[in-house]
Amino acid sequence: MTVPVLLVLAQSTPTTDGSAPSPATFVEADLAAPQVSVLDLGVTRGDGIFESIGVVDGRAQALEPHLNRLAKSAGMLDLPAPDLDLWRAGVLRSIELAGDSAAASELLVKLVLTRGIEGGDDVTGWVLCFADVSHVDAREGISVVTLDRGYRSDVAETSPWLLQGAKTLSYALNKAALREAERRGADDVVFVSTDGFVLEGPNSTVIALIDGEYVTTPSSLGVLEGTTQAAFFSDVEARGGRASYRPITVDELRAADALWLASSGRQIAPVVSLDGVPVAQDPAFTAAAEERMLAR
Amino acid sequence: MTVPVLLVLAQSTPTTDGSAPSPATFVEADLAAPQVSVLDLGVTRGDGIFESIGVVDGRAQALEPHLNRLAKSAGMLDLPAPDLDLWRAGVLRSIELAGDSAAASELLVKLVLTRGIEGGDDVTGWVLCFADVSHVDAREGISVVTLDRGYRSDVAETSPWLLQGAKTLSYALNKAALREAERRGADDVVFVSTDGFVLEGPNSTVIALIDGEYVTTPSSLGVLEGTTQAAFFSDVEARGGRASYRPITVDELRAADALWLASSGRQIAPVVSLDGVPVAQDPAFTAAAEERMLAR
Repeated sequence: MTVPVLLVLAQSTPTTDGSAPSPATFVEADLAAPQVSVLDLGVTRGDGIFESIGVVDGRAQALEPHLNRLAKSAGMLDLPAPDLDLWRAGVLRSIELAGDSAAASELLVKLVLTRGIEGGDDVTGWVLCFADVSHVDAREGISVVTLDRGYRSDVAETSPWLLQGAKTLSYALNKAALREAERRGADDVVFVSTDGFVLEGPNSTVIALIDGEYVTTPSSLGVLEGTTQAAFFSDVEARGGRASYRPITVDELRAADALWLASSGRQIAPVVSLDGVPVAQDPAFTAAAEERMLAR
Repeated sequence: MTVPVLLVLAQSTPTTDGSAPSPATFVEADLAAPQVSVLDLGVTRGDGIFESIGVVDGRAQALEPHLNRLAKSAGMLDLPAPDLDLWRAGVLRSIELAGDSAAASELLVKLVLTRGIEGGDDVTGWVLCFADVSHVDAREGISVVTLDRGYRSDVAETSPWLLQGAKTLSYALNKAALREAERRGADDVVFVSTDGFVLEGPNSTVIALIDGEYVTTPSSLGVLEGTTQAAFFSDVEARGGRASYRPITVDELRAADALWLASSGRQIAPVVSLDGVPVAQDPAFTAAAEERMLAR
């Protein structure tokens, strides 16, 4: 089989004859056919969560951190805790079904979990393995603008109902921010807080090189824990470099020696300009780091 | 036919023989079958908009304001402008198909428009006419808590990419706020801004009676223009009362002589307590106003 591969979550079904119910499982489904009800809270309210996992040479990248983040997002939305063994098996099965496609190209596996049909008992879930071509050019470098996220940097602690730090399906705002970036002639966005701190991109983690140290925003500021950024930090530290989590001011961002946006789809994309101002590059460093990360 | 009735948007299809393409139209669909692709941006990103229109005695309430708000939301999300004649016809057709159900009970018609399948050319749309039973009890009075929305009151003007004032499918946060209200033993939420102004409910408009005047928050503060609240204001003014749009401080809210949350599903639900403090009631006034509004 070639990509895309779609697996949908089939719920555990109780039996009437007293025998053990069949366990929940992922089953192959037809991507060309509709699979989601118009009553599903995933579509009527964006009420669900997702993860996107990179696949390189048939290997899922940072699978466990992604699964753990799925569970964390579920907790923040008061969704039933996902059975991570089941989801892991779904991811691996989708890659297996992708067959030669998985070995030949970079894929993404997207996991989606919604609250299901309003008033119903079951969540909705699926795993989609597909070839991601949207970000390949990003590795050449991206132009970025800063946009106000409208929130203080402490909002995740003061107002958890705002769901900052959960990876939800309610991403209309992130898409609108990317359109605003396009209107400004840029490729991507770095959200900043009203009190002057760097947050994250709509689909990425910000990494800045400041005074020889690689730094990123801690999750306490209401940003997602970046799986690709974490892999990069591991690589930096394995090679004797310094990496740390701490709040970064917008002024520090503008003065940084180098910047990257990290995401599963495009690894560590170097930022070539910030609000129209060129940012210094080290293509050889970025290329070498990505090569090591892709070899994980 | 009885409710629910589902109509889905069938796109205009070009012909190959040079004849005129068939126009876009709404066609009946099976609510029991899935209708939405897992690739639809409505479900993968909450990237779409909606409206909910009350139906009383077979008549759609505030149909034109709802259609106009749909168009406004579409503009804010850079979606193709909806053909309002088409959507109006879809709403009326769904009520017609509901037949006796429409005359016998209060219904809601929900309009959903998404950006469609990622990378595709067509939007996705549907109209669902169904019996709304979720809010009937609300007319007896609801308990409400204030929750910080995390934004300043001027955020819609400074940061339009945050989509405040658009009625989007990205409502996970609104659902989370309602769960927080439930944890606090309350029925509903009034969002407040970080600078101390009243915004709106997750699914409703706030109306306060202050010094003999009915007041609500202006849309310039990034809240939805309330269709039910507008109908209430018209009723107030038709009877010689005073109604106005102006920023309301949280202190004013707490000191108000009466409060209501207005929405299509439950009309003007009286607030019986705010953050645990009882709020004065005038059941006869509320009942009479609702009766007049429902007779529109």
